[in-house]
Amino acid sequence: MLSVSIRSTLPRYSRLWLPAQALVRNMSSSDGPTSPYTTLAISRPVESLTHVELHRPEKRNAMNKAFWSEMVDCFNEIADDQDCRVVVMSGAGRMFTAGLDLMDMANDILQPKGDDVARISWNLRKTITKYQETFSVIEKCPKPVVVAVHGACIGGGVDLITACDIRLCTQDAWFQVKEVDIGLAADVGTLQRLPKVIGSRSLVNELALTARKMFADEAKSSGLVSRVFADKEAMMAGALEMAGQIACRSPVAVQGTKKNLLYSRDHSVAEGLNYMATWNMSMLQTEDVMKSAQAAMEKKSPKAVVFSKL
Amino acid sequence: MLSVSIRSTLPRYSRLWLPAQALVRNMSSSDGPTSPYTTLAISRPVESLTHVELHRPEKRNAMNKAFWSEMVDCFNEIADDQDCRVVVMSGAGRMFTAGLDLMDMANDILQPKGDDVARISWNLRKTITKYQETFSVIEKCPKPVVVAVHGACIGGGVDLITACDIRLCTQDAWFQVKEVDIGLAADVGTLQRLPKVIGSRSLVNELALTARKMFADEAKSSGLVSRVFADKEAMMAGALEMAGQIACRSPVAVQGTKKNLLYSRDHSVAEGLNYMATWNMSMLQTEDVMKSAQAAMEKKSPKAVVFSKL
Amino acid sequence: MLSVSIRSTLPRYSRLWLPAQALVRNMSSSDGPTSPYTTLAISRPVESLTHVELHRPEKRNAMNKAFWSEMVDCFNEIADDQDCRVVVMSGAGRMFTAGLDLMDMANDILQPKGDDVARISWNLRKTITKYQETFSVIEKCPKPVVVAVHGACIGGGVDLITACDIRLCTQDAWFQVKEVDIGLAADVGTLQRLPKVIGSRSLVNELALTARKMFADEAKSSGLVSRVFADKEAMMAGALEMAGQIACRSPVAVQGTKKNLLYSRDHSVAEGLNYMATWNMSMLQTEDVMKSAQAAMEKKSPKAVVFSKL
Amino acid sequence: MLSVSIRSTLPRYSRLWLPAQALVRNMSSSDGPTSPYTTLAISRPVESLTHVELHRPEKRNAMNKAFWSEMVDCFNEIADDQDCRVVVMSGAGRMFTAGLDLMDMANDILQPKGDDVARISWNLRKTITKYQETFSVIEKCPKPVVVAVHGACIGGGVDLITACDIRLCTQDAWFQVKEVDIGLAADVGTLQRLPKVIGSRSLVNELALTARKMFADEAKSSGLVSRVFADKEAMMAGALEMAGQIACRSPVAVQGTKKNLLYSRDHSVAEGLNYMATWNMSMLQTEDVMKSAQAAMEKKSPKAVVFSKL
Amino acid sequence: MLSVSIRSTLPRYSRLWLPAQALVRNMSSSDGPTSPYTTLAISRPVESLTHVELHRPEKRNAMNKAFWSEMVDCFNEIADDQDCRVVVMSGAGRMFTAGLDLMDMANDILQPKGDDVARISWNLRKTITKYQETFSVIEKCPKPVVVAVHGACIGGGVDLITACDIRLCTQDAWFQVKEVDIGLAADVGTLQRLPKVIGSRSLVNELALTARKMFADEAKSSGLVSRVFADKEAMMAGALEMAGQIACRSPVAVQGTKKNLLYSRDHSVAEGLNYMATWNMSMLQTEDVMKSAQAAMEKKSPKAVVFSKL
Amino acid sequence: MLSVSIRSTLPRYSRLWLPAQALVRNMSSSDGPTSPYTTLAISRPVESLTHVELHRPEKRNAMNKAFWSEMVDCFNEIADDQDCRVVVMSGAGRMFTAGLDLMDMANDILQPKGDDVARISWNLRKTITKYQETFSVIEKCPKPVVVAVHGACIGGGVDLITACDIRLCTQDAWFQVKEVDIGLAADVGTLQRLPKVIGSRSLVNELALTARKMFADEAKSSGLVSRVFADKEAMMAGALEMAGQIACRSPVAVQGTKKNLLYSRDHSVAEGLNYMATWNMSMLQTEDVMKSAQAAMEKKSPKAVVFSKL
Repeated sequence: MLSVSIRSTLPRYSRLWLPAQALVRNMSSSDGPTSPYTTLAISRPVESLTHVELHRPEKRNAMNKAFWSEMVDCFNEIADDQDCRVVVMSGAGRMFTAGLDLMDMANDILQPKGDDVARISWNLRKTITKYQETFSVIEKCPKPVVVAVHGACIGGGVDLITACDIRLCTQDAWFQVKEVDIGLAADVGTLQRLPKVIGSRSLVNELALTARKMFADEAKSSGLVSRVFADKEAMMAGALEMAGQIACRSPVAVQGTKKNLLYSRDHSVAEGLNYMATWNMSMLQTEDVMKSAQAAMEKKSPKAVVFSKL
Repeated sequence: MLSVSIRSTLPRYSRLWLPAQALVRNMSSSDGPTSPYTTLAISRPVESLTHVELHRPEKRNAMNKAFWSEMVDCFNEIADDQDCRVVVMSGAGRMFTAGLDLMDMANDILQPKGDDVARISWNLRKTITKYQETFSVIEKCPKPVVVAVHGACIGGGVDLITACDIRLCTQDAWFQVKEVDIGLAADVGTLQRLPKVIGSRSLVNELALTARKMFADEAKSSGLVSRVFADKEAMMAGALEMAGQIACRSPVAVQGTKKNLLYSRDHSVAEGLNYMATWNMSMLQTEDVMKSAQAAMEKKSPKAVVFSKL
Repeated sequence: MLSVSIRSTLPRYSRLWLPAQALVRNMSSSDGPTSPYTTLAISRPVESLTHVELHRPEKRNAMNKAFWSEMVDCFNEIADDQDCRVVVMSGAGRMFTAGLDLMDMANDILQPKGDDVARISWNLRKTITKYQETFSVIEKCPKPVVVAVHGACIGGGVDLITACDIRLCTQDAWFQVKEVDIGLAADVGTLQRLPKVIGSRSLVNELALTARKMFADEAKSSGLVSRVFADKEAMMAGALEMAGQIACRSPVAVQGTKKNLLYSRDHSVAEGLNYMATWNMSMLQTEDVMKSAQAAMEKKSPKAVVFSKL
Repeated sequence: MLSVSIRSTLPRYSRLWLPAQALVRNMSSSDGPTSPYTTLAISRPVESLTHVELHRPEKRNAMNKAFWSEMVDCFNEIADDQDCRVVVMSGAGRMFTAGLDLMDMANDILQPKGDDVARISWNLRKTITKYQETFSVIEKCPKPVVVAVHGACIGGGVDLITACDIRLCTQDAWFQVKEVDIGLAADVGTLQRLPKVIGSRSLVNELALTARKMFADEAKSSGLVSRVFADKEAMMAGALEMAGQIACRSPVAVQGTKKNLLYSRDHSVAEGLNYMATWNMSMLQTEDVMKSAQAAMEKKSPKAVVFSKL
Repeated sequence: MLSVSIRSTLPRYSRLWLPAQALVRNMSSSDGPTSPYTTLAISRPVESLTHVELHRPEKRNAMNKAFWSEMVDCFNEIADDQDCRVVVMSGAGRMFTAGLDLMDMANDILQPKGDDVARISWNLRKTITKYQETFSVIEKCPKPVVVAVHGACIGGGVDLITACDIRLCTQDAWFQVKEVDIGLAADVGTLQRLPKVIGSRSLVNELALTARKMFADEAKSSGLVSRVFADKEAMMAGALEMAGQIACRSPVAVQGTKKNLLYSRDHSVAEGLNYMATWNMSMLQTEDVMKSAQAAMEKKSPKAVVFSKL
Repeated sequence: MLSVSIRSTLPRYSRLWLPAQALVRNMSSSDGPTSPYTTLAISRPVESLTHVELHRPEKRNAMNKAFWSEMVDCFNEIADDQDCRVVVMSGAGRMFTAGLDLMDMANDILQPKGDDVARISWNLRKTITKYQETFSVIEKCPKPVVVAVHGACIGGGVDLITACDIRLCTQDAWFQVKEVDIGLAADVGTLQRLPKVIGSRSLVNELALTARKMFADEAKSSGLVSRVFADKEAMMAGALEMAGQIACRSPVAVQGTKKNLLYSRDHSVAEGLNYMATWNMSMLQTEDVMKSAQAAMEKKSPKAVVFSKL
């Protein structure tokens, strides 16, 4: 994997960060999926940052059987990798993803097994739960995930990106909640997460019930993405820059922030505050606070501080 | 009712959909409320679509006593009507609705009965609960409801539209949470639903506490409506077109989507996913998935597929 | 305090309201903090309205130890003050607030006491809970709070304003969730409330994880603030005008609205409706409804009605 | 109906209460179901008390199709009947109930309609929801329901009694959660309510998973019933006596107590207290408090006080 | 106060514990309420244990106005008192408590102030909320509270004891949920807590709806109390012994246990486990674990270990 | 493993069930742990039933490091094993379990790793969460688990059994919530589950705060166990008999019952009913209902019916 040699010759992260554009070229996916994955290419373009790329460009990054389990393995690994502090996801080739690979998945969905309706249902429920887990691992992973979308993001793609923390896209990107078009209610996350990531319920309902496309401008004005870039290269540079801002800060602060933002989404404000206080009663005892406070008083950038791994 | 004869002469729904503008003229409300209702006019301009029109134009569609119970009857009927797959609501005459008909409702609210404060309270609670149900039936009805607002939408009108699934309006529309002006906290849905349909809590609070008007542009930018049209005719055509997009898709997919979007609103993501998996363990066994998947592979439009009634 | 003499010579509130610009000048903070507070200046520029001003301009209104307890005292007093129906908050001097006064707070946070980790944690939890309460009192106070931000609003400032009901800002305002920069996850409200007051989760995450500044335009488009003004004078006039709209309405209606909006935020729609019905079974028996209804029928302004204190 | 003439000749309730044994004989069900019901016999043995009797003794009070809807009508009527303050339920004939009348219900459950699995599921869900409502009406009815069980209480009978407020039984009574024996998980209330009415989860699980019978002694020691009587006559006298204790007290107090006990079951203590305070802010203004307090100070029995209807 | 001098001459706590009977005599309440309280007598019979005695024996410890606020002050003080690790509550004189002192409280409840029904309601809600707090402070205090009941425990007494952690009683004790007898639904805790402390819902409902007395045996078999003693002296010795068992253990372990037991009561198991893990990630770092583990391995009693204060 | 050869020579399950005492002897654990486990012995004494035995008798079945992960593997396997319909757990040797193996676990708990307090906390939280999962897998496994306790059940043993569905014990059994004795609040399930499996909160608190032993009689009267047996042999026969009652019934009914009982524990009744209806809309379509109903009508035992695997 190219990224390894690059990384080993890199000077310390913080001094290096600026020429992001150059690094983007190192994020090239020309080498294909990374072992042990057949649908994902993993690299580390710079220290502390893991790049996860959907990588079946010839199939428009469609989500086949392998994909659903590789994502789980990949993010479990990232969760445990102390060298990784932030993740950038993107898609190889012409688009982010065409969504479900119907051909490959057909027998799971169209020919479920079981001796009677109840037993088929039982097995289907297991399958759905397993597929839901494919995207929930993104949330369970304590490292923030920045997702960068270019071109089409269809069906399962929307399920995926709504489980990420920060969404960026190119001017030519479009989004489509496609499930009603194949006769089913979206069941791996979109109906649960989309209404909690954008502010217009009327729009959510319209997208989910009519399967119409939403383009970059509406994605921005509705809050689905927080930034739109001219093209993929600019977006990847932007994603890298943003991820760098995250990676250089205290991992105790960053990962605690992600955990508590997610907790708050699903609880009342009072419950969230209670949990937060219980969380921080230990986390505030990190030496990172002292280091950061000192740097702040000395007007140093966070990038000048070295934090222990977490 | 004109709509009946129209409908009986119509060819199959899906082939007919495009000339929506022409159909809009058939949605005319000149014939007045439809028996058995005195405040609502019900029609079926095209197959599978029910048009519910607030129809007391001479009273600016103000909500009188009859309205509060007719809505319940109307939507219970729609819920059970297998021929209906989607609903469009709008108002007859110069505006959507002026809200509560204070004159007609006065003794319910201003002169509640009871021997002492507790007994009056008991009766008032029953009344409020009954009125809340008037709009909750819209949510309980599994068919999606597209509401199209022109002119004023005041007080109870806001309670009504926030219980609908998709909101559209004309350029001249305005919205007003009016209740503080008559000395009460809005109690039939606005305070509960408005914050969950738009993304700015500061705006919600401002509207509810000051009773100021909000015009179409702000309704759009805040996400209350997902589309603004030049005038009522264009809006009704747009509503019809959008409703058509919904009506032609699998009712198993569409109604399951509405049910789960509402469930998700009121639950954590994890709870929502669990419910969704339990829901779809049977719903995925519909033949609609096979039909839709086949159509998708053959590059056919969803409109070309015939789905069983639900 | 100047405001007292002004107030005593004022004619009745409602007739006076219009020349807001003139009144703004009376909201001047030149006199400094008001006894018994050292960090807050309290005044009553017009009847029924309390102005709370962060007032350590020479320290950029940084939040020192005194501030955290004075806020609690101040809002508890306001909650009980029947002469106050609405609150306006703003900052004295060049900016709204620079956030935590690290120097003054250092030993609370950086040198917590305790014999071992558990005991230090126990004490830290008490401290965090106490600080959380500093902003929760704003929500517990039943009178609406309009906050007007100019210049910088950093760290604790964001915690503060997200606990207010309506947010306004000047064109030169900017907002920064600063906590990750000092090595900690924000623990006094931002992570809990910010996602519930604006509509874009991607933006919330970006702000909280990168500590980047957000300027007035994005604050408006994301819904953090509901209005942007050219400069502080215009904003204070606007805040006063808006507060006046609230103060002149029935306090039973206004405070019931605030209470139920907050309840709804943290509950399902069905739970919110149930609570609302139980709330209003007594509140609808206020004479304010009759007074307001009569005024409405006579086409009088709410300002023409005199409501009893609450 | 005999009970009417009895009632009209009765002196005031409170003076009459003691000779309960005599009244029990008037609760005889020999006259059969009461119009308009075919499965229930309704009577009013004494003022303020409604006796609802399962009345298909020749069919061991098995629950047929008519039963499921008659219960709803019956309890909706009771809820609105201001003359009724408390309900006693029991079964006519040799036992309380044999549960589901499989023969009569077979086609609803065994031959549900629908074009495919999803549509059959949709219809089944409607049916289950309707049947759940049959017992939920008991909880929704604000008047307390005392249920008196003799002989067998099987399957649906357990669903029924767990929705009642107070459970009594005879020494020869036995209870059986029968559903697993016919191949299904109990779906009309037992699995939801039984664990919340008795204190041993191990016992609940054992009963529900093995369908074993539980006899009166274990029903008492586990807390399912709060009293065991020697025989049916003694039990009916006891039920009448207990119901009389309830009926003679302030209906504002009694019905508010039932409502809040149910609310508390499903909420945290803090939520329950909040709701309670909101409930009682009006209910404490009843004149019943003054009447009751006065009676208490004068050492009078509650039965000596006349309360307005609710 | 006698207890002070006793305490100063005491040898170390753990060596002293056994002769509890002797100490009980020092818990005598003959000296009356302790300054600054008029309704409570506070003493420290042995190290680490605070004894709170309801002390208006001539008024059967009825709860007057002073009581409701003194309880709050008393338990807030205990919460902050590092020398106290456990609390024993009991009543002076012939009984535990007769409940509400109707005479003293009459104008709060029977003559609430306010210009109209809504304003009276508003004030009543404040009053109820304040009274609820009187017992909630017991739960908020992290030190376990053992309550010992002799004779009558009526009305407010039941509200009080259900907020305590462990309940003991004498053979002659009886309990009565009295509120329906004075025309109101119990609103300061009984309806919320009683169903969560005992296992028979039928019994809870019977007690709350009929106001019948429950005697010691039923209190034990229903689980309201966990031990019954022959008389008050034996009970106080037992309470002291039990409190001693608690006081000699690690306060980090004990108080963390109380906190999490209460959290679990109001949350799902999954939520409770999540909170617990977050709590213990710091608390396990206490040196108390090492000390305790070492003592356990050396077969020493917990009483032989000295733990730092918390 | 002996059980395999036994099983292969067994006639069909249902005909065989009665001579349970004989079978118990086959559950002997003399052969030691079963590969691949070092702490658990797994056998299948009769068809459809898996026996999981804690098997470190020489160490009093203390829970060492291996145990915590073997339990997860074991129950995941059972969950997927279609031949298993019910589980019986018990302990080999003189007692059920002595709880945590402090010696083996010491460095996980007493010497957690990490560069500062926050990082140690982070790692501890992972460890606790992993240990919690060890018992949560019992709940996640859809097959009912009957646990049979003899002798001591200490510390982690209580965490374990409260996660099982049905609890039995011998007359000489005793239970001890031991954690406070080693300086920590129990964090792998007892504080969350114990209060939900027994009916006396006073008793739960007493056990958890004082670490006192509870013997079989109190375990029975408090509802912790639903049956007490004279000795281990009788208990194992009883467990086998009870498990047989479960194993012979429809697995669709049985496992759906377990799932929904657990769901109901953590939700309101209304939520539970909604989930149940959604669950059964497919599960009622099982052929097991028809088979069972037919058998019931023909007065056959459930054991006479052959159900497909699930």
